[in-house]
Amino acid sequence: MKFELQHTDPRSNARAGVITTDHGHIETPVFMPVGTIGSVKAVQMTELKEDIKAQIILGNTYHLYLRPGLKVLEGAGGLHRFNSWNRPILTDSGGFQVFSLAGNRKLTEEGAEFRSHIDGSKHFFTPEKVMDIQRTIGADIIMAFDECTPGDADYAYAKKSLDLTERWLKRCIDRFKETECPYGYRQTLFPIVQGCVFPDLRRRAAENVASLEADGNAIGGLAVGEPTEKMYEMVELVNEILPKDKPRYLMGVGTPANLLEAVERGVDMFDCIMPTRNGRNGQIFTKNGILNMRNERWKEDFSPIEEEGASFVDTLYSKAYLRHLINTNEILGLQIASVHNLAFYTWLMREARKHIIEGDFSSWKRIMVERTMQRL
Amino acid sequence: MKFELQHTDPRSNARAGVITTDHGHIETPVFMPVGTIGSVKAVQMTELKEDIKAQIILGNTYHLYLRPGLKVLEGAGGLHRFNSWNRPILTDSGGFQVFSLAGNRKLTEEGAEFRSHIDGSKHFFTPEKVMDIQRTIGADIIMAFDECTPGDADYAYAKKSLDLTERWLKRCIDRFKETECPYGYRQTLFPIVQGCVFPDLRRRAAENVASLEADGNAIGGLAVGEPTEKMYEMVELVNEILPKDKPRYLMGVGTPANLLEAVERGVDMFDCIMPTRNGRNGQIFTKNGILNMRNERWKEDFSPIEEEGASFVDTLYSKAYLRHLINTNEILGLQIASVHNLAFYTWLMREARKHIIEGDFSSWKRIMVERTMQRL
Repeated sequence: MKFELQHTDPRSNARAGVITTDHGHIETPVFMPVGTIGSVKAVQMTELKEDIKAQIILGNTYHLYLRPGLKVLEGAGGLHRFNSWNRPILTDSGGFQVFSLAGNRKLTEEGAEFRSHIDGSKHFFTPEKVMDIQRTIGADIIMAFDECTPGDADYAYAKKSLDLTERWLKRCIDRFKETECPYGYRQTLFPIVQGCVFPDLRRRAAENVASLEADGNAIGGLAVGEPTEKMYEMVELVNEILPKDKPRYLMGVGTPANLLEAVERGVDMFDCIMPTRNGRNGQIFTKNGILNMRNERWKEDFSPIEEEGASFVDTLYSKAYLRHLINTNEILGLQIASVHNLAFYTWLMREARKHIIEGDFSSWKRIMVERTMQRL
Repeated sequence: MKFELQHTDPRSNARAGVITTDHGHIETPVFMPVGTIGSVKAVQMTELKEDIKAQIILGNTYHLYLRPGLKVLEGAGGLHRFNSWNRPILTDSGGFQVFSLAGNRKLTEEGAEFRSHIDGSKHFFTPEKVMDIQRTIGADIIMAFDECTPGDADYAYAKKSLDLTERWLKRCIDRFKETECPYGYRQTLFPIVQGCVFPDLRRRAAENVASLEADGNAIGGLAVGEPTEKMYEMVELVNEILPKDKPRYLMGVGTPANLLEAVERGVDMFDCIMPTRNGRNGQIFTKNGILNMRNERWKEDFSPIEEEGASFVDTLYSKAYLRHLINTNEILGLQIASVHNLAFYTWLMREARKHIIEGDFSSWKRIMVERTMQRL
């Protein structure tokens, strides 16, 4: 994997770059739609490419490991061949789901034992095993296995957790170096900076991660309940330490404003379930603000979902029609909302990139943060 | 509405024709995807047009009347404007849903009182009201309001029911003649032949309907539990009486084999929820037979859903991937199955038409009835 930094905003830390993988280029800043269990919910792969213009999608290691399972993924020749997405893929390490979704979790030095949320079956993830699983899934970018410290952890817990995460990171790197992608292309491993909201822990974690000279680096454990200002403070602090010539990935973030604020602070990559999950619940993000489609207000509003929107659904369908579909639980409503929101998120990152290159990112960003977060 | 009969099979009653409406042409035989409540479940309007190549879709009067309701539909300028489908639409009369879905039904000479299956609210449908509702929905082809006699009704009930249906039909026609489409284009009313599985009732009903010289005629009350051979017998009997120069619509039918058998007996139009509903349950219709996608057999079958299938999903996605999506209840699984099955049904009717025109329909049909109904 290669990262070329193309432009840095003169007034902020916002950057435009290009990541090159064996499955193609990714222009940054980039938003990565979440393809949990091998599909981006309610979205055709053709729509992801042609309408949403996604450059890279995510897969969740925990979910894919449970279903369809490694045997099927290996038989297919990896996730790209299995789900027909031939552009880059990133997989998380499963840590987040083990610590949020699975049952009966037992954490030891060796790894994490847990029970499947599907059938209660018992499983054991170690750093080594998670590397092997991600080799089999075959994403272009894979993530280190860490403990996702709860957002409200106290200092003592956070420190102990970071200690473990750092030991696990070393084991991840060792295993990654001993193994290779079974499908002939290259994979790269991103370490993750943890440390909760404690500046000295974040600093230490960032310094450790920076010293590893990985192809890219991630910031995890944010947007888990802490105040938004704390999140921005941690991102700033960490990005001062992480190498400038490597992409930075802020995991699981966030609202359109969160993305723009983080871009301004030097983040290059994002993923979040918000556009799809909130979309399925009727929340529509637009360049002029947020619409709750369940609102009576749209009942007889036959204007397009978004004038000059970023995808075909915006002008093909009206607000009143989308409201009707969402209110009657029609699957097409979920499809329209998901395509719209994802196309908006990827558009927002393309626009950010354009403004970084043109040199007016900061002033554009200030307007957009306010505009996109209005309630319509 | 105009119907031009282009070809009749020399060895059977199969016909190829063209229906012309103010929203465009329909080549027959034709399968009409069911757009229950204003959307064909799990299918984008763009996919319906470009991939499934649907020429006409259905709307259900009962569902549309309840949600979004007439005020919204009228405000939109009719269903075509509301759901963005600018090709022909047909609406049923709501009779079937009133007699199968609604609660606390009370049938009188005047009409049918029922309670909404959504909120229990009380409603009253009369032949006149149903004409007015279908005027407001604005479909190109609208249906007469009748009693849907249960499939196991005895002769006395069936006769009494047909008597009522015939009186209601007269009231429908009177009201239809007194009113007009509020949106400036033309609508046409199809009467429906009822009479259960009793030849003399079917004959009487067909003669009555034939005498009305409507633009097209429908056969209702079949595929409601009677033996398939009885259904074909009734279709044969009725089609001997219905005018040859008008399209014939067999309501709510059926499997690929049912369609082909009915085409051979002179039917031109079909609708059925089978391709979408069964698709959502994992049943996939192909030219070589029926696949149950939940079957273990497909778990590691990475071959395309259908080689030389009729839509993009067939070769983009594999059987193993579709099985995974259906088994994990992923929305994309519902989308793929729905697009595939509908594209197969419309393909089957285009092929039937081609073979009717080429003169080898009967031999082709014999092979296809057997092939399409195999369990794979």
